[in-house]
Amino acid sequence: MSISKRTFIKSTAAAGLALYAKGESDAAEAQSKSRNYKRISCEEAFSTPETTAELRRLAGGVPSMKSGPIAGSFMTNLLDIGAGRIKGMDEDGVDIQLLSLVSPGVQTFEPANALSLAKLVNDRLADAVKAYPTRFAGLATVAPQAPAETVKELERCIHTLGFKGALINSHTNGEYLDNKKYWPILEALQALNVPLYIHPRDPVPGLEAPLAIPGFAVGWGYAVETGTHALHLIAGGVFDQFPKLQIVLGHLGETLPFLLDRLDNRFQWQMNTFNMKSPLKRKPSEYFRDNFVVTTSGMNYSAPVKAALEAMGPDKVLFAADYPMEVQKDAVEEMEAIKLPAETKKKIFDTNVRRVFRI
Amino acid sequence: MSISKRTFIKSTAAAGLALYAKGESDAAEAQSKSRNYKRISCEEAFSTPETTAELRRLAGGVPSMKSGPIAGSFMTNLLDIGAGRIKGMDEDGVDIQLLSLVSPGVQTFEPANALSLAKLVNDRLADAVKAYPTRFAGLATVAPQAPAETVKELERCIHTLGFKGALINSHTNGEYLDNKKYWPILEALQALNVPLYIHPRDPVPGLEAPLAIPGFAVGWGYAVETGTHALHLIAGGVFDQFPKLQIVLGHLGETLPFLLDRLDNRFQWQMNTFNMKSPLKRKPSEYFRDNFVVTTSGMNYSAPVKAALEAMGPDKVLFAADYPMEVQKDAVEEMEAIKLPAETKKKIFDTNVRRVFRI
Repeated sequence: MSISKRTFIKSTAAAGLALYAKGESDAAEAQSKSRNYKRISCEEAFSTPETTAELRRLAGGVPSMKSGPIAGSFMTNLLDIGAGRIKGMDEDGVDIQLLSLVSPGVQTFEPANALSLAKLVNDRLADAVKAYPTRFAGLATVAPQAPAETVKELERCIHTLGFKGALINSHTNGEYLDNKKYWPILEALQALNVPLYIHPRDPVPGLEAPLAIPGFAVGWGYAVETGTHALHLIAGGVFDQFPKLQIVLGHLGETLPFLLDRLDNRFQWQMNTFNMKSPLKRKPSEYFRDNFVVTTSGMNYSAPVKAALEAMGPDKVLFAADYPMEVQKDAVEEMEAIKLPAETKKKIFDTNVRRVFRI
Repeated sequence: MSISKRTFIKSTAAAGLALYAKGESDAAEAQSKSRNYKRISCEEAFSTPETTAELRRLAGGVPSMKSGPIAGSFMTNLLDIGAGRIKGMDEDGVDIQLLSLVSPGVQTFEPANALSLAKLVNDRLADAVKAYPTRFAGLATVAPQAPAETVKELERCIHTLGFKGALINSHTNGEYLDNKKYWPILEALQALNVPLYIHPRDPVPGLEAPLAIPGFAVGWGYAVETGTHALHLIAGGVFDQFPKLQIVLGHLGETLPFLLDRLDNRFQWQMNTFNMKSPLKRKPSEYFRDNFVVTTSGMNYSAPVKAALEAMGPDKVLFAADYPMEVQKDAVEEMEAIKLPAETKKKIFDTNVRRVFRI
C-alpha cells in the first residue's frame, strides 16, 4: 500500500478537479458572506498511507486504537486532504480547516523513521495547502524523539512551508515536554512565534490501566492524560523559561478551565502546608490564561463553552470540529446553537483562530 | 495521646459550655431568618485522636499528607466537634454542618482495626450531633475492607445513630466500589435509602506517580482519582444493579459535569468503533444526572457552579465549604457572590441538601 508522494498528490488533485462542485463552493461563499465571519476549525485530522502503514506494522498488523485510530470507517476521510474533504466542508459550512496529522502522529516510531516520516507528512500537507490555499492551513508534524533535528524541521515548516504552528500528541515514550531534553523544541516555537497544539493520545504507562474504563478511554482518559501534561508544563517552570510560548489545548482545555480557581487555591494550600516557597513566578491560573488557548473540539456544548468563556475570557476560545472523529456538521450546528453574543461567536469561529494561528 | 471516649466527649462538651457565645448564636439565628434559607454545608471534616494516632503510626511516626492530612495547623480544627466549631459556624454564617471523618478515613487500616475504629468514630460523631442536634448532622464512617460487618454497622448508623448517609474516600487498597466484593455495601445503602458520599483521597497506585505534580496533587490529582472512580461505577453497571443508589461527589463533581455531553458522545463512538453493544441500559449522562448529585466543596466559584447547574439542573448542586481544608467564611461569601436566581441559591444552600440527606 505504498504510494509515491507524486502519485498521491496527483491522484488527490485529479479527484479534486473531478469531484469539486463549483455550485456548492459558491453557495458556501455566499453563506459565509451573509454571516460576517468565516468558520475556521482548528483541530482537524488527516493521515497518510505511510504513517498508517507504519502504525499498523507496529501493532503487529492488527488495526488497534492503541496505535492510533487506524481501524474504522473514517480512514477514507482521514486520508482525503483534497476535493472530498473540501466538498464536506462546503456541505457542513466550514470555511477553513487547520490540518494536523492524526494522533499519535509519528511519536511511536523509532527516531530516524519518525523524523523522516514527519518530513514526508509535512511535504504532503504543504502540497494540500498549496492546492487549496483559501481552505486549508497546516500544523507541523514533529518528532520529539529527535529534538535537534526537529528544531530544523520546525524552521522549515514555518519559514518554507508556511505552516501556522506545530502539534504534538501528548507524551513521547512516556515523557512530557517539561522534560528538559525537549526544551529546544519549545525554545524554537517561541522564537518562531507560533503556537504548539498539545493533542491527546493514549495515556502514559502509569495512567493507562486505571483510565482504561470501557467506553470512557477517550472522553475521560484523553482529558486526564492531556490535562496532566499541561499541568506538568506549568509546574515544571516551562512558562517562566519561555514566557511567550503559546499552548493550544483541544476539548475546551481538557477540563482545566472548570478548575482554574481551585487549582490556584490548592496550589497555595499545598505550598503553605509543606512550608514551601512556590518555585513559580506566577499563579497557575495566570499561566493558563496567558500561555494557553482552548478549542471546542468535541466539546461544542453550551455548559462547558460558557464556563470556558467565563474562566478564560472571550479571546481564548477557538472553534474546532475534530473532524473526522466527530460529525463536522453537528459540531458547526451545536456551536451555532449556543446562546452567545454575536461578537463572541465571531471571535470563536474566526477572529481568535486568525489571531492565534496568524491565518 | 490516647484519650478515653468519655473524657474526650466530656472535655469537648465542657469547652463548649465555656466558649459558646450566646449572643453570637442569636445573631446567627437572626441573620439566617432574614435570608429565607439556612446554609447547610455537607462536606465538613473532623477527626479523632485515635484515628489520627493510627495514621501517624502507619506513616512511621512522620506526619505525612500521604496518609491523610495529619500534619499542619488545622488539626485543632479537625479535632473540634464541639463549641469551637459551632462558634466558627456562627461567625462564618453556616447553620448546619454535615460532618464526616477526614480522608482517608479508616480505609488504610487492617480490616479488624478499621472496623473497630469506624465504630468508635461513629459513636463520637453521634455524641457530637446529640450535643448540637440543630447544628450538626453526620455521615457514617465505613470500613469497606470488611463488607459484611460494614453492612451491619451501616444499619446501626442509620437506624440507631440517626446518620444521614455514609462517606467512603475513593479507593480501598487500590480497588473501586465497582468491584463486586463491595456490592453488599451498595445494596445496603440503597435499601437504607441513604446516599453515599465518595470523597477524594490519594490516587490508586497506577495514577499516583503521574499525578504527583508539585502543587497540583490535590486540585488535579484528587479530581482525577475520584472522577475515575465515578466512571468505573457507571461502566461497571452499578446503577443498573442498584437504580436508586445516590452518589454524592464533592468539588462540583470532580469535573464530570463539564464533560457530560462529550462522555455520551465518545461512549457511543467507542461502542460503534469496536462494534460493541453497550453493556449499559442507559447513556452515561443519564446515570450521572439521576444517580449523582454534586457539592460545591472547594469550588464555590462562578464559572464551574454555573456549568454544573446548566449540565445537571438546579436540584443537583449542594453547598459545601470543605472545612477546615478551606476557609469556611470565604466559601460562604464566594457562593453568595455568584450571580444566580434567589430560588437557585436557596436550593443550593438549603432545599437540595435537605432533600438528598433528609435533614
